[in-house]
Amino acid sequence: MKTTIIGNGAMATVCALILSPRYPVRMWGPNAEALAMLARERVNERYLPGARLPDEVELTADPEEALAGCELIINAIPTQYIRATWERFVPLVGAGVPVVSVSKGIEQQTLLRPTQIVRDVLGDPARVVASLSGPTVAEELVHCLPATLCAASEEEPFAEALQAMFSTHWLRTYTNTDLLGVELAGATKNVIALAAGAIDGLRAGINAKSALLARGLAEISRLGLAMGARQETFFGIAGVGDLATTCFSPSGRNRTCGEMLGRGRKLDEVLEAIPGVVEGVPTTRAVVALARQHGVEMPLTQAIHRVLFEGLDPIEGISSLMSRDLKAERVN
Amino acid sequence: MKTTIIGNGAMATVCALILSPRYPVRMWGPNAEALAMLARERVNERYLPGARLPDEVELTADPEEALAGCELIINAIPTQYIRATWERFVPLVGAGVPVVSVSKGIEQQTLLRPTQIVRDVLGDPARVVASLSGPTVAEELVHCLPATLCAASEEEPFAEALQAMFSTHWLRTYTNTDLLGVELAGATKNVIALAAGAIDGLRAGINAKSALLARGLAEISRLGLAMGARQETFFGIAGVGDLATTCFSPSGRNRTCGEMLGRGRKLDEVLEAIPGVVEGVPTTRAVVALARQHGVEMPLTQAIHRVLFEGLDPIEGISSLMSRDLKAERVN
Repeated sequence: MKTTIIGNGAMATVCALILSPRYPVRMWGPNAEALAMLARERVNERYLPGARLPDEVELTADPEEALAGCELIINAIPTQYIRATWERFVPLVGAGVPVVSVSKGIEQQTLLRPTQIVRDVLGDPARVVASLSGPTVAEELVHCLPATLCAASEEEPFAEALQAMFSTHWLRTYTNTDLLGVELAGATKNVIALAAGAIDGLRAGINAKSALLARGLAEISRLGLAMGARQETFFGIAGVGDLATTCFSPSGRNRTCGEMLGRGRKLDEVLEAIPGVVEGVPTTRAVVALARQHGVEMPLTQAIHRVLFEGLDPIEGISSLMSRDLKAERVN
Repeated sequence: MKTTIIGNGAMATVCALILSPRYPVRMWGPNAEALAMLARERVNERYLPGARLPDEVELTADPEEALAGCELIINAIPTQYIRATWERFVPLVGAGVPVVSVSKGIEQQTLLRPTQIVRDVLGDPARVVASLSGPTVAEELVHCLPATLCAASEEEPFAEALQAMFSTHWLRTYTNTDLLGVELAGATKNVIALAAGAIDGLRAGINAKSALLARGLAEISRLGLAMGARQETFFGIAGVGDLATTCFSPSGRNRTCGEMLGRGRKLDEVLEAIPGVVEGVPTTRAVVALARQHGVEMPLTQAIHRVLFEGLDPIEGISSLMSRDLKAERVN
């Protein structure tokens, strides 16, 4: 499978490291200058310092060169930029070429998931698509520390092909046919991670963070159920597994953003200080809209929305959640 | 509610701190000398340094004095010692006095849960019992950091009474009628925490630990379902919430035990080095027996059993789990 990776961030680099040299890999990035430097130095200084890109990986900023003859496309563009990026590729994408996305978010204006955006831009609702998701801190994958992934596609043979490609002695990949659930879980966990970071910033402790994880999981799986996803997806590798990593790993951008907010810094200032895109911020707006659309109660997501966009003090957000009426625990 | 706490470890101390002075609290411990010192110094140096026991809490090593006139008993004895301890109390326990347990384990010889052991010893299968469980690192509760608890009883009014007693402005308590599920989740999470610690000891990373959390949650909830518990209990505060805390908090005894094993130390040596009981160790034997009895596949628990009792190298345990046949992800 000749593979083209669209994007040159951390997850794009990790995909190249997993696949090359077993598969021929080409990587496209939007910035010709940055790509030329990466081609020369083979190190992604900005997004994944310390990882050396295999010599076999070809680099190009030219869309035509990137897609010529390719048999699989990996989408590794931040969710809010997928549409604009793919619009440049539309005439170049081969008719039967499947697309797997590693992006985790929901498009703010349309409320579409990454694979839906790709299908939408291509004007091809039957395009074979998949999502690769799971607890995958890039810095650990670079060092071949053991990890798991979930290859989700409604076309099971495509999920199985990805499972074979993305399995090594240190990486175990499961298949899942619940593409909707896997993409929703991947997007919504970034919202919960913002709150987890705020708890860290407030030094509220691990009891509070674990309660947040459990109650956050309950509300994102409620949304998933209402939208037609399978609840068990939220309790698997790409659900609670990814959620745990994102809430507890010190390195995550979403958790870090939340932590800075918890310490009292302003959102604009925080987003400027963090390199790369904090997916959870635009996704919070999208998830609040989805919750309204599907009539699902999501008190944590609502509280995060108020902290991000309505000036609520994080400590008041936590207090208001703690003082809600006492009740029996409900997951559904 | 005049309350007697049986036990003087960390969770016993925390219960006293939550209830006193709102409720009259008496605390019983097995060692008269240690109790006398605690009565004098009001600090539990061995198990919870830094926490000051309120002056109102009465301390006694005399079973008769401990139970006279009491209206609620809190069991805070390590699981494997509940039977021997309660045998001394049998003639002293008032007929209608309900018992709530904060112990997290399964009795090795009988495979009974804490509240079942108490009923068994009392010879009173209709005794009103409950379990209090959740992500509650004692060191954080002592400082009134925000936390959640689950009060589980098949008698809903008793769960609600406990909810009222165990709610403060920093502690939010939910009710749950699935006593079986809450006790099983509390016991089995200590087994998974041993593996989480081993991953830390091997420096295998947070991706691996989060995968373990997800796959561990799947297998303990499978056991719960097979035994008649509700699956959603495992995805709540006392399930995934407590599991996350136990796997990620550096202070937990079970995680610490696993970490020392991961670094290559022998079990005997490790148990000697850790103050207090490591509930997960005897509970691993019990859970393996329950899994066999109920025909449930629990590969992680089996691997932990082999590491603890059959001399398997932890690194081989992880490798064998990573190299199992690739397959679709299943929670049920």
